[in-house]
Amino acid sequence: MAHDAPRPPGVTSTPKAAGIVKTWSRPGKPVLPDLDAAFALLGLTDGATLSFHHHLRNGDAVMVAVIDAAAWAGLRGLHVAASSVFAVHAPLVAHIESGVIGSLCTNFLSGPVAGAVSRGALKTPVVLRTHGGRARAIARGALTIDAAFVAAPSADAMGNISGTIGPRACGVLGYPQCDATHARRVVAVTDTLVDYPAQDIQIAQDRVDMVALVPSLGDAAGILSGTTRPSDRPEDLAIADLAARVIAASGLLVEGFSLQNGAGGTSLATAAALGRIMTARGVTGSFASGGITGFHVDMLEAGLFRALLDVQCFDHRAIASFHGDPRHQAMSASMYANPHQRGAVVDRLDAVVLGAAEVDLDFNVNVTTRADGIIMGGSGGHADTAAGAKLAIVTTKLTAAGFPKLVDRVGTLTTPGATIDVVVTDAGIAVNPARAELADRLHAAGLAPVPIAELHRLALSRAERLPQPPRSETVVALSEYRDGTVTDVIRQV
Amino acid sequence: MAHDAPRPPGVTSTPKAAGIVKTWSRPGKPVLPDLDAAFALLGLTDGATLSFHHHLRNGDAVMVAVIDAAAWAGLRGLHVAASSVFAVHAPLVAHIESGVIGSLCTNFLSGPVAGAVSRGALKTPVVLRTHGGRARAIARGALTIDAAFVAAPSADAMGNISGTIGPRACGVLGYPQCDATHARRVVAVTDTLVDYPAQDIQIAQDRVDMVALVPSLGDAAGILSGTTRPSDRPEDLAIADLAARVIAASGLLVEGFSLQNGAGGTSLATAAALGRIMTARGVTGSFASGGITGFHVDMLEAGLFRALLDVQCFDHRAIASFHGDPRHQAMSASMYANPHQRGAVVDRLDAVVLGAAEVDLDFNVNVTTRADGIIMGGSGGHADTAAGAKLAIVTTKLTAAGFPKLVDRVGTLTTPGATIDVVVTDAGIAVNPARAELADRLHAAGLAPVPIAELHRLALSRAERLPQPPRSETVVALSEYRDGTVTDVIRQV
Repeated sequence: MAHDAPRPPGVTSTPKAAGIVKTWSRPGKPVLPDLDAAFALLGLTDGATLSFHHHLRNGDAVMVAVIDAAAWAGLRGLHVAASSVFAVHAPLVAHIESGVIGSLCTNFLSGPVAGAVSRGALKTPVVLRTHGGRARAIARGALTIDAAFVAAPSADAMGNISGTIGPRACGVLGYPQCDATHARRVVAVTDTLVDYPAQDIQIAQDRVDMVALVPSLGDAAGILSGTTRPSDRPEDLAIADLAARVIAASGLLVEGFSLQNGAGGTSLATAAALGRIMTARGVTGSFASGGITGFHVDMLEAGLFRALLDVQCFDHRAIASFHGDPRHQAMSASMYANPHQRGAVVDRLDAVVLGAAEVDLDFNVNVTTRADGIIMGGSGGHADTAAGAKLAIVTTKLTAAGFPKLVDRVGTLTTPGATIDVVVTDAGIAVNPARAELADRLHAAGLAPVPIAELHRLALSRAERLPQPPRSETVVALSEYRDGTVTDVIRQV
Repeated sequence: MAHDAPRPPGVTSTPKAAGIVKTWSRPGKPVLPDLDAAFALLGLTDGATLSFHHHLRNGDAVMVAVIDAAAWAGLRGLHVAASSVFAVHAPLVAHIESGVIGSLCTNFLSGPVAGAVSRGALKTPVVLRTHGGRARAIARGALTIDAAFVAAPSADAMGNISGTIGPRACGVLGYPQCDATHARRVVAVTDTLVDYPAQDIQIAQDRVDMVALVPSLGDAAGILSGTTRPSDRPEDLAIADLAARVIAASGLLVEGFSLQNGAGGTSLATAAALGRIMTARGVTGSFASGGITGFHVDMLEAGLFRALLDVQCFDHRAIASFHGDPRHQAMSASMYANPHQRGAVVDRLDAVVLGAAEVDLDFNVNVTTRADGIIMGGSGGHADTAAGAKLAIVTTKLTAAGFPKLVDRVGTLTTPGATIDVVVTDAGIAVNPARAELADRLHAAGLAPVPIAELHRLALSRAERLPQPPRSETVVALSEYRDGTVTDVIRQV
């Protein structure tokens, strides 16, 4: 035995006092009866950063239960790092008002918490990120997480987590992957403790510190939405048909074409219209990506695409497909959209079909605030996919609820106009002036694009009222671009 | 637009100059025609650390091709961080002699490279680690990797890697996971560039910097061994039967029992014998782990175990099962055995059946050096599983090739005797004196354990010659325990 032998390069560890024991003589991983026990063990202090994912969407009971437990543990001034906030998280407003929550960052902010933030409930501005930007911030240490709470549809006693098995299955677990890799402590929160080893492990035990049991992860009906079919409203179908024709005329719709479209009715209708063109042309796409619906599964099974890259399942059919079809693969938020890692899926997109609350004369898009300035969303993957896709299409009506949707200047700049190629409306198409070659192609296809100023003028002529942006000097949120640049601030209402 | 708004806690990034561009205007991920081009791009310097995995085993052509390219690039004094070295890597000896390779760490060292190291070819001692210890060293920064070369049975142009698809498929890719997570640069080396996205992605594109093409990953016949069946030799079967009876008598063979056994004939025969006892008792095991063979798949499909946790596939049947059966799951080396992460699979083992080159009176085991002192292996998962399992059984004959296998003091201490519970030989059983309760159980079952000194005496009486340990003062290798402690040194022959 010799502890002082020369050591080769690359080997910098100092030998420790030998810890040669049978490991079963050590305590096992904690499986705690409730969240209170988890907080007792975590030993967090005031101001700690707690992170959450949103795969349970508007059915999620975990974030509120955790903050309730944090409040019970006497913690204050917590930084909540959520990937999204929904209406179901309304009870967090009381925790903001009481000072238990001191600040918040998220990629999407809606419901009563959004309203409270807009009215100035938090002293520190909320940071609104993109899905890729959040992955970047966590991986690069800009957002350090003290404890990540991973809502686990099932988990075993060593903390192996599955998203596809359990009464509140949500499928792919793309968003918490970064959290589980980088957080100081990782808690698997589950209502379904399964025998070891869990099946279909998506986050493995070597990334999980403890398991905390809760009576229920939430409301299964809110986890999976029932509205992931193409719209059948004539005005949506008209826009969808036009958007599909734009893609068809763009020169991109060739063998290996790739597409992302959201779960909204018009976006799905665009994919449906595009599918008919692909079938007619005999084009097979390489992949469709993003949050995945049963409609995407239909496209896969119809042979329109060879693969699905899925960061989040939106319905039961998507979960079943992910579980059973090897062509349907998971991706982490980092793989999906991180701009500073080693190449994201969004960089491989040919086309993305996006929505908008407002689009302005510079093609900037707002998906963050309403016409009255109240926060109602945020980028999610909007700015990520717009930057990555060769063709970023925004579909929108000219007006909604009497307000113009084409405006002089967006209320909040979520996605920079430099990354938006085409705006498709119910009154025609506008092409970003920086994309002259695309405009030529659309002209040649008889799609007759017009200057965006013309769509703007039409929108104003049809509008019954104008947006009323808040005039307060107080900043309630920052809109952070995917690389960490602040693109805009949101002011108090 | 405001860049100077107050930022909440946890947000420490400074906004950068806005990089708002369409990402397709940037160069894509490099797909290089050969390894020379990869070295030109990597910009490595003398003394750099290059890492490799051993899923291609004795068919691997990648490590030699990479070091050939490094030599061609003029690099010298490289630190090779391999997970294993086999006979097929013989051409590395010339690179050691020429100074291209300056040092080496590995979990298993065999063939001509082992011989050269034993004779003092390297000035710096080789570091021999366990599988879990390597994962620990990489994750904790004790082993920093400048460039990880991941042999990829297939990969796409963004670097998504699959182990199960391709003419030289090897199945699970458990070992390079740590490398791909922590190395400064990661190169996917493949002979099979597939359309994007690759199917069955095991290492995702956000962890891979570049793709380098090679004509062939190696010899498929050497990648998958044909000898993963239980032994049918009577002397092996006698030991296997005895080992199975030890497990059956231990009190551990109850519902949920877990087992690791290697791919050796006696080890598989032990599992076969145990399977018959499990069937007779109506016991269903929870999982079998480790390198997985078709025999393990048979056990799974026969219902003897509910799950397989697989760090490496040993044959075609294992690959097919991993590809198609959700009960057969991959594990990384970290999940498998890292002692300093958040809980390894080995910690959940009830029993492990291990081999030995030598066992000594303190139950220490040598699987690193031969009787003449030449290096012929190393721990791999030996010391990891012995520490984790409640019952670590070493099976061995009393003698081999005329040498005693039960010795006074092992030539190299690979696995500490404090973690070995029972030694099973062709002349009886010895129980570690620290396991009095186990000895009582074996006595009660009529297995009549004897003091290890008695087996030692028998072995000496049957031996024709004695081990000749090297007497040199020169240390050629360190045997590092899973936690980084040096348990022994290996001297020049």
